[in-house]
Amino acid sequence: MTTTVAGFVGVTGNAGVKDGRPDVSLVHATGASTSAAVFTRSLFSGPSVTLSRAGDLAGLRAVVVVSGNANVATGDAGLADARELQSWAADRAGCAPEQVLVASTGVIGVPYPMDALRDGLAALPAAAPVDLDAVSRAIMTTDTHPKAASRQVGAATVVGVAKGVGMIEPDMATMLSFVYTDAQVPAADLDRVFRAVVARTYNAVSVDTDTSTSDTAAILASGAAGPVDLDELEAALLEVCTELVRMIASDGEGASTLIEVRVTGARDDAQAKLVGKAIVNSPLVKTAVHGADPNWGRVAMAIGKCSTEEDIRQEAVRIAFGGLETYPRLPTPEARSQLEAYLRNDEVVIEVDLGIAEGAFTVYGCDLTEGYIRINADYTT
Amino acid sequence: MTTTVAGFVGVTGNAGVKDGRPDVSLVHATGASTSAAVFTRSLFSGPSVTLSRAGDLAGLRAVVVVSGNANVATGDAGLADARELQSWAADRAGCAPEQVLVASTGVIGVPYPMDALRDGLAALPAAAPVDLDAVSRAIMTTDTHPKAASRQVGAATVVGVAKGVGMIEPDMATMLSFVYTDAQVPAADLDRVFRAVVARTYNAVSVDTDTSTSDTAAILASGAAGPVDLDELEAALLEVCTELVRMIASDGEGASTLIEVRVTGARDDAQAKLVGKAIVNSPLVKTAVHGADPNWGRVAMAIGKCSTEEDIRQEAVRIAFGGLETYPRLPTPEARSQLEAYLRNDEVVIEVDLGIAEGAFTVYGCDLTEGYIRINADYTT
Repeated sequence: MTTTVAGFVGVTGNAGVKDGRPDVSLVHATGASTSAAVFTRSLFSGPSVTLSRAGDLAGLRAVVVVSGNANVATGDAGLADARELQSWAADRAGCAPEQVLVASTGVIGVPYPMDALRDGLAALPAAAPVDLDAVSRAIMTTDTHPKAASRQVGAATVVGVAKGVGMIEPDMATMLSFVYTDAQVPAADLDRVFRAVVARTYNAVSVDTDTSTSDTAAILASGAAGPVDLDELEAALLEVCTELVRMIASDGEGASTLIEVRVTGARDDAQAKLVGKAIVNSPLVKTAVHGADPNWGRVAMAIGKCSTEEDIRQEAVRIAFGGLETYPRLPTPEARSQLEAYLRNDEVVIEVDLGIAEGAFTVYGCDLTEGYIRINADYTT
Repeated sequence: MTTTVAGFVGVTGNAGVKDGRPDVSLVHATGASTSAAVFTRSLFSGPSVTLSRAGDLAGLRAVVVVSGNANVATGDAGLADARELQSWAADRAGCAPEQVLVASTGVIGVPYPMDALRDGLAALPAAAPVDLDAVSRAIMTTDTHPKAASRQVGAATVVGVAKGVGMIEPDMATMLSFVYTDAQVPAADLDRVFRAVVARTYNAVSVDTDTSTSDTAAILASGAAGPVDLDELEAALLEVCTELVRMIASDGEGASTLIEVRVTGARDDAQAKLVGKAIVNSPLVKTAVHGADPNWGRVAMAIGKCSTEEDIRQEAVRIAFGGLETYPRLPTPEARSQLEAYLRNDEVVIEVDLGIAEGAFTVYGCDLTEGYIRINADYTT
C-alpha cells in the first residue's frame, strides 16, 4: 500500500504526553495546497476544534495532532496551549498559524503537560518525506490497530489515516481522519466531494453513540500530480474512507464483530439512516450479535424505536441476516441454527427493507462486549 | 408495606410459559372501577398493546399479564392468541373483553405455547383477595427483585407494581407498571394525574436506551375507600412511581449503581430532560461510574452531544458529583480521590447546572457492567 504522497513531508515522535510512545505528529505541504475540513458539532468541543474551525479551511498547509490528551474543558489556559501548539507547527511548516489544523484526542479535562510538551516538540527532528503509516500510529489512543488506506486516481494518490475506537458517533464530522492527496483540486470542489463522502462514511459509523468533543476530518491536496477527474476522485475517496470506517468499527473498543446494517425501501435516505442508526446503536442488538444469539426480535424492537416515522408499518417490514429471512416469515428451528452459525462470523450484515419507497443507507458499527466495559471502566485511573 | 387494596382480587400461577415459576397474573376489580393507561410508542408494539390501546381505558376492570414471552412480531396468529387471553380474563373477571388490559413481556418473535397456556389458565384457582407482592413476582422476567411500593392518601391506599430491567427507555409509557387504589376518582382526573406522574417517573428512567415493544402503565381505582384530595393523590402517586422507577434503575440488567442525574438552570424542563438523558444514557459515563473512575470529562462530552441546544455555553455550565464540583473548577488531586471514593457508593448523583434559566429535570439510570453483556449476549439460547 502506498503511504507517501508527493508534496507532503512530516515528522512524528514523543513529546511527553504518553509514556515513550509516539504522541505527536506534524504533516505539512511543501508548497501551496487546497483543503477541506469538517468538525464535531459537540457543544463541549475543545480549543483545538475552536482554533481549527476559525482557520483557513480552504488553504490548510499543515496538520498537527496530539494523542493521549484531548485538551477539552480546560478553559482559557487550554486555549493558550492550543495556540502555542499551532504557532510551533506554523513555524516548522513555514506557513501562517491559521493554515495549521490542530487536533487532539485523549482524556478530557486535564491540561497538557506543557513543560514536557515544549521540550518534546523542540527536540523533534526536521520534517522529511513522510510515511503516513507512521502518522496513523502516532495518532492512536486506545486503538489496537493503526488505520490507513490508499487508492490511485489517474496519476494521483489518495492516502487516508484515521484513529478512534470509542466515543464514536460522529455528528457531521468524525473522530480524527486526515486524507492526503497529490491530486490538483480547487478547494471548492474538494469541499463538495469531501462532504459527500463524509456523509456516507464517517457520519455512518457508531461504536457507542457517544459523540467526541474532538471529531475532525480533513483532506489536503498538494497538487503535485496534476488535475484528476472529480468523479473518479470521489469514488476513490469513498473507497478510502469506507475502508477506514470499517477499520474503526472493527477496532471499536472491545469489539469482536463488525456490524453492517443495510436499510432499503425507506421513504428517503434520511429515514433509512435513522432506522440503521437505531439498530446499530441498540445495546440489545449489539450484545445479541456478540453472543451469536439468534434473537432477531431485537432488530424489530430497534426499528420500533423510530416512533416519529409513522409511515413505517410493521406489516411491510422485512428483516434478514446475511440473506437469512427472520421476519415476517419466522425462522424454523433449522433456520435459527443457521442464523446462530452466521452470527459467529467476524462481520455480520443485517438487512432491513421498510417496504415504503427507494430510500437506502448503510451504517457501520460493532458488537458490545465485556471488553468495552473493562476498557472504559478504568480509563483514567 | 400494605400490598392489598380494597375492591381488587386476583390470582397468579404458572401457565407453561416459564419453567414452573409464576408467569401469569390476573387482577380485577370486584365492581365498577375507573382507570387510566399509557402505552409504548414503538412501531413494533405487539398485539397485547394493540388490543389494550383499543379498549375502554377509562373503565378498565382487569389486568392480565404474561411474563417470559412478549408475543410481539408474531403476526395474525399472535393477535388471535392475545384475543383469547383477553376473553379468558374477561370471563374470569365478569366484565367485557375491552375492559381487560392485556400485557406481555419476554422474548420477541416467538409464538405463545398455546396448548400449555390454555391448560395452565384453565387450572388456575378462582381469584381471591390478592397480595400485590405476589403479582409483582409473577410479572418478573430478568428482574432479580420484585418491585412494589405503597402509600396512604387519607383513607385510601395506593399500591404500585412494576417489572423491567432491560430494554428500558420508556417513551410516553413504561415497561410494565400497574397501580391499584381504592380511592374514588373520576376517570378524567385519574388520567390527568397519572400522565403528570408518568412524565416525571417512567419517562425519566433509562437502563439501556432500548424502548420496549410492550411498555404499558395503568392505574385502576376501585373507589372502595371513597373520594380523596387530588393533589394528595398526585403526591402519593409520584412517591410510589418514583420508588418503583428507582427500583427499576437499581435492578437494571447487570447494574451495581443507581445513577441519578439532576439537571438545573436549563431553558426549560424539556431541555433539562434532554441533557439528563444524554448523560444517563452515555455508555462512557455509565462505565466510568461502574469503574469508580473519576473521569468527569465524559459528562462534559455527553452534554456536548446535545448539539441542537445552541443556548448551552460550556463557559456557563457547572458539573458536580454529590456536591463535589469538577467543572469549571477542575478537581485537585485530593478532590479526584474524594470523587473516586464517592463513585463507589450504591447511588451516585450527578448534578449539572446549565446556567441559562430555571428549567429542571431529574432522570434515573444505572451503570453499564460486564453483567449486562453476559445477560444479553445469551438471552434466548
